[in-house]
Amino acid sequence: MLNALESAIMEKGIVLEDHILKVDMFLNHQIDIPLIEQMGRDFYDYFKKYEINKVLTVEASGIAIACFTARCFGVPVVFAKKGSHKNVGDNVYSAEVYSYTKGKTVQINVSKEYLNSDDKVLFVDDFLANGAAANGVIEIIRQSNAQLMGVGIAIEKGFQAGGKMLLSSGIDLYSLAIIDKMEKGRIYLKRRELC
Amino acid sequence: MLNALESAIMEKGIVLEDHILKVDMFLNHQIDIPLIEQMGRDFYDYFKKYEINKVLTVEASGIAIACFTARCFGVPVVFAKKGSHKNVGDNVYSAEVYSYTKGKTVQINVSKEYLNSDDKVLFVDDFLANGAAANGVIEIIRQSNAQLMGVGIAIEKGFQAGGKMLLSSGIDLYSLAIIDKMEKGRIYLKRRELC
Repeated sequence: MLNALESAIMEKGIVLEDHILKVDMFLNHQIDIPLIEQMGRDFYDYFKKYEINKVLTVEASGIAIACFTARCFGVPVVFAKKGSHKNVGDNVYSAEVYSYTKGKTVQINVSKEYLNSDDKVLFVDDFLANGAAANGVIEIIRQSNAQLMGVGIAIEKGFQAGGKMLLSSGIDLYSLAIIDKMEKGRIYLKRRELC
Repeated sequence: MLNALESAIMEKGIVLEDHILKVDMFLNHQIDIPLIEQMGRDFYDYFKKYEINKVLTVEASGIAIACFTARCFGVPVVFAKKGSHKNVGDNVYSAEVYSYTKGKTVQINVSKEYLNSDDKVLFVDDFLANGAAANGVIEIIRQSNAQLMGVGIAIEKGFQAGGKMLLSSGIDLYSLAIIDKMEKGRIYLKRRELC
């Protein structure tokens, strides 16, 4: 049976050219709140085995998912900010992330005030493709000496390298939907291993 | 009596130089979920007199507030995206917004797919200062022929022109906290008119 996100992808997702999946009608431009809330519960059900005390994400599309996940855990969200902001200051952990969507490298920053060696972190994001954003966040977690407990991804592009890279690093990765391939406008989901 | 946001500002807010209020420990970097959820309920209580069918905000700091507000209304969020994104395409309403925080002009975009003349929109955002972001969003709403029902602001800087500008345009503005002034590191809130 498909979960809530998988159903939404199959019903509403649109394959654009260049293997881009358009899901901005419910995920990353318009936000379907009951769906995102269910995704938060799904992440909680999987990761509640850990003592998570902070949910980390990257602005902007990860924030809604992170909020509803953090709500289930009863913990705060911290979102990495892109670029340099006056309000963040120099007291930050930083990493460079190449954005394929924007076609450029952006710096992501997390204030040292909100991440440290006491933190047990769940990183959540909307997409996992090549793992560029995930690598940046992992680098920031490394700098902070926090502990990465797991990575929760809404949509993993299974035909790109990010998922394998994280799993081979021993990271507990849980993707709500894995796109196996997109062909002639059709979306093929990878069957999840349930047992 | 102070509301939840006003209490958080007085307990945790820090006055930085240049009249910048640092609230990134609960609002716009780290996110205190129960607080944001309460803010969503507060916006709902004020704006439920209208038939809102969409909550509009601007990435990134507005997203969490918009989500918990939209949840109370049972409607989706649409967030304006900054810059030009491949996934949004050319089919967008656009406006230019000068960001004082970043010291540059950015373009904000909303896809024409997610805003149209049937929409009765509540715009929410984290800060209102000079009203630059609000003006940009109002311009986008004008282009879409949607109806702006109200503007919900978390923190209004009462000593800057944005609030007066919106009110004088006949817009129903509701700010959860209005900063009257910041002096010698102290924050002075404007008393809300309750009756």
